[in-house]
Amino acid sequence: MKIHIVKIGGHLINDHRYLHDSLEAFCKLQGYKILIHGGGIKADLISKKMGISPKMIQGRRITDQETLDIVVMTYAGIINKSIVAILQSYHCNALGLCGADGNCIRSYLRKITNINYGHVGDIDVKSINTHLIKFLLKNNIIPVLCSITHNGNGNLLNTNADTIAAYIAMSLAQNQKESCEVELHFCFEKKGVLRNMQDSESYFRKINFHLFQKMKKNHSITNGMIPKLENAFFALKNGVYKVSIGLPIHLNDDVNTRLCL
Amino acid sequence: MKIHIVKIGGHLINDHRYLHDSLEAFCKLQGYKILIHGGGIKADLISKKMGISPKMIQGRRITDQETLDIVVMTYAGIINKSIVAILQSYHCNALGLCGADGNCIRSYLRKITNINYGHVGDIDVKSINTHLIKFLLKNNIIPVLCSITHNGNGNLLNTNADTIAAYIAMSLAQNQKESCEVELHFCFEKKGVLRNMQDSESYFRKINFHLFQKMKKNHSITNGMIPKLENAFFALKNGVYKVSIGLPIHLNDDVNTRLCL
Repeated sequence: MKIHIVKIGGHLINDHRYLHDSLEAFCKLQGYKILIHGGGIKADLISKKMGISPKMIQGRRITDQETLDIVVMTYAGIINKSIVAILQSYHCNALGLCGADGNCIRSYLRKITNINYGHVGDIDVKSINTHLIKFLLKNNIIPVLCSITHNGNGNLLNTNADTIAAYIAMSLAQNQKESCEVELHFCFEKKGVLRNMQDSESYFRKINFHLFQKMKKNHSITNGMIPKLENAFFALKNGVYKVSIGLPIHLNDDVNTRLCL
Repeated sequence: MKIHIVKIGGHLINDHRYLHDSLEAFCKLQGYKILIHGGGIKADLISKKMGISPKMIQGRRITDQETLDIVVMTYAGIINKSIVAILQSYHCNALGLCGADGNCIRSYLRKITNINYGHVGDIDVKSINTHLIKFLLKNNIIPVLCSITHNGNGNLLNTNADTIAAYIAMSLAQNQKESCEVELHFCFEKKGVLRNMQDSESYFRKINFHLFQKMKKNHSITNGMIPKLENAFFALKNGVYKVSIGLPIHLNDDVNTRLCL
């Protein structure tokens, strides 16, 4: 069983044209596929409309109760359902899920260390309901997952979408009953991981783990890209067949940044 | 195949204690079951937080673009996912859906007559995906439907939750391949349809269609109750086995107002 897992984020979600192009490209992927999305930029806009300033520490969102309500409304509500409706209009039989739906992904409340992140959930990797995901896929239903999980005690939690994508990819690849050949694509509005942030053409064709370590050391990649690449290498090390980063319109060819161990 | 369809609305959704009690009662129902919810009171609260006054004409919401975004966020987002997370904590394997998910319910944009209701969808009864609903039920997944539908062209639409409940009940009852014995329960914070709005104990044990017509004529029922009863009788006339209106804690006994033809 071969599965494409596509994560879309950044400006792709908030820009009407970008979003439609991304979803069209996703629809063209042959075979089994799963879409995963975040929506931080839209959540910031809605927060501001409600008179609430987004609280960020080191690029990460502090999720107090009112922020949790906003991210659930934004990710699981307006973004997830708009994506599903657009995919349906392309005759792609999408079904939107958060981690609570069908007990898809459980998570633990992140422990307070130096920073209290609030209602943020770290995925319980054993909880990922690969049975449900494969059951939907085999019945021609395309799961569209947003970055909200639950703790099993009735509480929703905010979870990073890149991490969800990597963990689902890994769980499907390692599935004992029927392991899958999983391709994981992190898509955003750039052609790939850039050497020079000012030059959109300066993207790497390949990054191996050694190069990534070097880039971290000499600070030649931005803060936001580090966790994305960490998720990507984590997936590769845990059985995922192929990982790429770049534009959704290049999902079908091999132009985006390809990661290798 | 016997199916309970429970619609919850009104203050049940917005009050923490009411909501938990309602969901606990729902969980105790034996056999196949579906939950359907609205959320107008919460949508009003969120509208106000965003500085937008809810626009109502004759008790019906006018759904302009910003109101559509709010109802999608509220119904499909915070309310649907909170309900699913609570049901999961009771070991009830819920999965939240709007009409776009799995192409569950399609609707037509309501035509402009005297009033322009905006992005409001009237259900295309033939579109109701009873195949998906039964497929989920037979695989021990409990559908939790919110009152958002889609038109198949990528647009989400706001649809009355009572109508969704009645149409789904009817479609399942009339299903040609495998007709179902459907019980439809409209639940809210009152014991049933009241004779006297000031007296919460004054509820009817039974209302037949003749009595309903009489009550409409002599204005002895409120405006809000009329469409609910119209949906209820419409369902009864179209093959639904049993319809009741009242408290969710009485789902399992026969205390609520029972409707008959």
